Amino acid sequence: MSYKVPVGLSNKHLHVSRKDLDTLFGEGYELTPFKDLKQPGQYAAEEKVDVVGPKGTLKNVRILGPVRPETQVELAMTDARIVGVNAPVKESGKLDGTMGIKLVGPEGSVDIDQGAIVALRHVHLSPEQAKEAGVADKQIVSIRFKGERGLVFDNVLVRSGKGHDLEIHLDTDEGNAAGLKNGDLGEIII
Amino acid sequence: MSYKVPVGLSNKHLHVSRKDLDTLFGEGYELTPFKDLKQPGQYAAEEKVDVVGPKGTLKNVRILGPVRPETQVELAMTDARIVGVNAPVKESGKLDGTMGIKLVGPEGSVDIDQGAIVALRHVHLSPEQAKEAGVADKQIVSIRFKGERGLVFDNVLVRSGKGHDLEIHLDTDEGNAAGLKNGDLGEIII
Repeated sequence: MSYKVPVGLSNKHLHVSRKDLDTLFGEGYELTPFKDLKQPGQYAAEEKVDVVGPKGTLKNVRILGPVRPETQVELAMTDARIVGVNAPVKESGKLDGTMGIKLVGPEGSVDIDQGAIVALRHVHLSPEQAKEAGVADKQIVSIRFKGERGLVFDNVLVRSGKGHDLEIHLDTDEGNAAGLKNGDLGEIII
Repeated sequence: MSYKVPVGLSNKHLHVSRKDLDTLFGEGYELTPFKDLKQPGQYAAEEKVDVVGPKGTLKNVRILGPVRPETQVELAMTDARIVGVNAPVKESGKLDGTMGIKLVGPEGSVDIDQGAIVALRHVHLSPEQAKEAGVADKQIVSIRFKGERGLVFDNVLVRSGKGHDLEIHLDTDEGNAAGLKNGDLGEIII
């Protein structure tokens, strides 16, 4: 069966904990929503920080809100190489054993102990969409993109449940490898 | 049938014409081989130049030798975005309609009229290897890579003939999207 899903390309970004936001932007600071993301309640914030690794700096990396229990820096492998961290491919929030990195904000800097990852590619679906597509939360599927740089991504994680809405999340390396722009349609292959 | 081919990952690089090499490094300058490439007679040179676009500069981009009839700058889409050029996906040497870019060497700079491309992914095979693999020059095949970021690249061009040797050429975006390192094996799917 063919089920089509639009792609959302993730540029390098980070999620911050309440505590780290205090350090970077000042006690009690609140993020300023800049643009709503497709996933309900999530937004790109106005706030940006520098991400500093042993080999280089990524300037003005955007924070996504709201705050989370743990700070997490999501890089494409190209970005990870620029700053010189070995960022493993991880599901969001699964940070055990990952490397730390330095974050520099306008009011202070913080060295996180862990949290530099390359996001595991995944597809979000609401429970209704998952039912239509014939997939379940945590299932591994493939997704085909057509076109000049057409390819089939294997090992795509399904994330389904309340608070999820139809979207494939790929990073910039993956999007570029497939020649994609935001909103291009992929097809789930079970 | 399964035919395995090692991958060679292309970082951003350029090929230069005799005339542009004269401008960049001085009249009659000869490239200094730094490392032989797998394709017979091709080498990475010691020489590097800066590639300057409307939005940014890529410092120290390596020249591959020997000199060619026309200068050509091969970028990953990530690189193209950094310098701010719209580099189309093109087969090597097919530069009609591509954008120019500025190159800065130690002895001079040159604004090429065209030649900024994203290389069309391709697989090199000698005539014997192509026969074994059951493919022909100019055929379009798919290539599967396994692993954590496993994927299948469609629209891979076969380049076969004298002077070609078994190797899949991907750029850094493509290599990162598949989590590859040099020498990893892909499998041709006809």
